[in-house]
Amino acid sequence: MKRLTILGSTGSIGTSTIDVIASRPGEFRVVALAAGRNVARLVAQARALAPELVVVADEADARACASQLPAATRVVCGRDGLVEAARYPEADLVVCGLVGAVGIEPTYAAVDAGKDVALANKEALVAAGEFVMARAAATGALILPVDSEHNALHQCLRGENPDEIKALWLTASGGPFRGWSREALASATPEQALLHPTWVMGRKITIDSATLMNKGLEVIEARWLFGVGPDRIRVVVHPGSVVHSLVEFADGSFKAQLGATDMRHPIQYALTYPRRLPSALKPLDLVAAGPLRFEAPDTERFPCLALAYEALQCGGAAPAVANAANEVAVAAFLAGRAGFLDIPAAIRGALDRHRDAPAATLEDILAADRLARKTAADILASGVNS
Amino acid sequence: MKRLTILGSTGSIGTSTIDVIASRPGEFRVVALAAGRNVARLVAQARALAPELVVVADEADARACASQLPAATRVVCGRDGLVEAARYPEADLVVCGLVGAVGIEPTYAAVDAGKDVALANKEALVAAGEFVMARAAATGALILPVDSEHNALHQCLRGENPDEIKALWLTASGGPFRGWSREALASATPEQALLHPTWVMGRKITIDSATLMNKGLEVIEARWLFGVGPDRIRVVVHPGSVVHSLVEFADGSFKAQLGATDMRHPIQYALTYPRRLPSALKPLDLVAAGPLRFEAPDTERFPCLALAYEALQCGGAAPAVANAANEVAVAAFLAGRAGFLDIPAAIRGALDRHRDAPAATLEDILAADRLARKTAADILASGVNS
Repeated sequence: MKRLTILGSTGSIGTSTIDVIASRPGEFRVVALAAGRNVARLVAQARALAPELVVVADEADARACASQLPAATRVVCGRDGLVEAARYPEADLVVCGLVGAVGIEPTYAAVDAGKDVALANKEALVAAGEFVMARAAATGALILPVDSEHNALHQCLRGENPDEIKALWLTASGGPFRGWSREALASATPEQALLHPTWVMGRKITIDSATLMNKGLEVIEARWLFGVGPDRIRVVVHPGSVVHSLVEFADGSFKAQLGATDMRHPIQYALTYPRRLPSALKPLDLVAAGPLRFEAPDTERFPCLALAYEALQCGGAAPAVANAANEVAVAAFLAGRAGFLDIPAAIRGALDRHRDAPAATLEDILAADRLARKTAADILASGVNS
Repeated sequence: MKRLTILGSTGSIGTSTIDVIASRPGEFRVVALAAGRNVARLVAQARALAPELVVVADEADARACASQLPAATRVVCGRDGLVEAARYPEADLVVCGLVGAVGIEPTYAAVDAGKDVALANKEALVAAGEFVMARAAATGALILPVDSEHNALHQCLRGENPDEIKALWLTASGGPFRGWSREALASATPEQALLHPTWVMGRKITIDSATLMNKGLEVIEARWLFGVGPDRIRVVVHPGSVVHSLVEFADGSFKAQLGATDMRHPIQYALTYPRRLPSALKPLDLVAAGPLRFEAPDTERFPCLALAYEALQCGGAAPAVANAANEVAVAAFLAGRAGFLDIPAAIRGALDRHRDAPAATLEDILAADRLARKTAADILASGVNS
């Protein structure tokens, strides 16, 4: 029986993970659960799964949780609580479904403790990929990507020699605004941006899909996950989201992974790797799914993708800066305090103001992240695009 | 340096193999060449590649070859010559590009001698797959499929557990007659049937593509190559021939292999396996290649596919019978002595007249093959469809 810690258990990835666990009785035991502020759902999950450790964001919520759970359940809170859960000695695998930069430290802690990580958090690799991967290599921890694109690449690379990769091809649905004019984009609302054409996901990542920043962050993740330079990572728009990504090999052969657009598929893959267990989910119908279309991404109308490549080429803390500025701008957009085109403007501004400082430690990265948040907030407050 | 024997060197697969070898100087040495009746091309190849052994179909041609080649080159002929080339001690890998049932014995001989085989000949597996695979397992010989479909499946199965295969999906271009009415098919000519929409191949296999018998034979091959029952081998029509085949796994994930329609790709894969070497061939352009369409095959208008499944389910020598009848009928069609719909009629008739006899040895299979050829010739002579 595999013992799991689930970080971000009440979010989209967390609840899908618990669905997968429920569909395979006897395969998994949950030893620790961590969430943010959704106490009601967390308590319900803890009652059903009986973990030994429960983590919430703040102390008052921790007291509220503890009062509703058996006395044997240890309840802790905050950043230290997340790190404790990530390193929890009883766990074999840590599912990291945290959203945003809050996922960086616990992911690093998990690989530092030699835990395999089913990783859905993008920021851990975007901001600190070099550190996380180097630590995982040192401790022997496996990083199993849950993002459908990287999960697809992981599947395509089984049994292959990484030196024989010619290019990684990340597919992008193109989001809800594919084909929109720049004028229309300027007045796009959060409600419109949240209508993703193919995937049901959390709010932050859905907005990132609409700006293509999601694909930009994925390019950076792929660079660290698979050790392939940015010149060999390409993005192709594939509106149907049937092909989840492709690998092009030195000999001209492409391998692709295809499947239904249901995150429980890549989650199950990561939970059971290297085994593939039968799934009760609706299978992909190849005839109904086609025709499969591919087109080049439009980086003029969707500049976030090009900004992410620029940050990756720049190196050091630049990807952390781009990511932090994006996170602040997306939150402002969702709150109605910024327009859709303010998102790339905030990233552009934060990268322009970023001075190439040493990024020798994880702490340097976290400091750059904090500074970029402030910069982005200042840019947005000054109404860059209005 | 890998040492090769090429069986069928003057045919489509043989000449493409020699192209691949020429594109990778220093990687390969050809130690034996075998061909049928194209003496002029065989002599030219032998002069360029300087093999130690040369094989032609008949004795007069052998004398003609010998007179044009250095005295040190041993020239032999016929069935015994093919088997000698297949077992040639100096070879590491035997490329089998022979067309038709003539490929059965040399393929068996090669695996019996422990040689890895890059296999493009369908009949060795269609008629004698059980024997060939069992012998390969016993001697440790690898069978590397060159057919683009099986080559694709081989690529998709790297690093995977065969027990976790849910289904193998062979793609079919649908051939030049996709969508034709039965009336139009009845008067289809060899010239029309030879206009394959996506692949340039030999004449026999091109006609087989037009009838879908090619795909039927591939279903039987896949059954033996990958040890998967017929209920888990499916055919899907994919007119663009960009996706060369797919594997569906137990967990609902599909993996596909895609590439340009150039047989030099799968040939190079088989020659260099497990390595993938850079290729100078034009790469696949994913955006230009799409959209990728998939449809169910029409087994009513193209009954050969269903006949092949029937023969596989029947087992024993039935696949050899279906294959032999097809070979006779295709030759008659190409010679203008039979109509397009006489091909499935001849297979149907041969299977109906086939009595389930013991198929305990390779000789039993070869005897059933000979008998089915006679049966098919009788059926065609009696004008079954006219």
